[in-house]
Amino acid sequence: MQAHELAKPYPTVRMDTNALKAARLMTEQNRPGLIVVDDNEHPIAILPGSQVLRMLIPTYVQDDPALARVMDENSADHMCDALGARTVKDLMSENRPTLPVVAPDDTMLEIAAIMAANRSPLVAVVEERSKTASLMGAISVTQLLAAVLPSD
Amino acid sequence: MQAHELAKPYPTVRMDTNALKAARLMTEQNRPGLIVVDDNEHPIAILPGSQVLRMLIPTYVQDDPALARVMDENSADHMCDALGARTVKDLMSENRPTLPVVAPDDTMLEIAAIMAANRSPLVAVVEERSKTASLMGAISVTQLLAAVLPSD
Repeated sequence: MQAHELAKPYPTVRMDTNALKAARLMTEQNRPGLIVVDDNEHPIAILPGSQVLRMLIPTYVQDDPALARVMDENSADHMCDALGARTVKDLMSENRPTLPVVAPDDTMLEIAAIMAANRSPLVAVVEERSKTASLMGAISVTQLLAAVLPSD
Repeated sequence: MQAHELAKPYPTVRMDTNALKAARLMTEQNRPGLIVVDDNEHPIAILPGSQVLRMLIPTYVQDDPALARVMDENSADHMCDALGARTVKDLMSENRPTLPVVAPDDTMLEIAAIMAANRSPLVAVVEERSKTASLMGAISVTQLLAAVLPSD
């Protein structure tokens, strides 16, 4: 079995996607992260949910999580105000996790090796064409394990 | 809203759980990782799916993923043989990701701060009693985001 047979559609956003819209997409699709693509649908990064949370939390609380305890509920109500005015680009951190990429004809063992080497729960399947490369879909670690494991 | 209201059951394994059984639990429950608990149901670690894959791949392929390409399909068929004879303990690596822990009365902002600081898609909710501490459940980043985001 090859990557193109395992690839499934995966929600994507762009750098200029509204941050609140991205957060909603994550919850609606129940994904711990989204794939960020450029204008040519080429995956350039992964946006983890924990990075969205980072935007919601005042810097002084990030530095000392114990301070969260003394904030009142009203502050929590306004946690999300910051998201509406930002984009995905604002959420991306410098040391973001890499999104490993495989080719459509990569084998299960190749995919497993790349996923294991990157300690990633997801790989993007990218089809390289003459001048462009586009996202065909993604393979999660559970999908790959299900394909690899012998039947009962 | 507090952690105990958000906590949901999460699949757990023990150090002596059969590795193949753990891998099947991951695929059946469609989770990218499992919580490893000790004999007192206290969470001690997280077992990521990518770590299970690592066990399936010959060391020389881990060192050079390009070698996976030249392995024949028969080798892939036997990839899972190793799992049946191993336990979760064998799958755990030294530099495994930490599983952040929150208390049942922690607020959404506290949970968000801990998740963001640990760049983790999951926190365990642990109830400390006089002498023991047990796992109440877990909160995923999508659950937390859904609770925090304002309604449309």
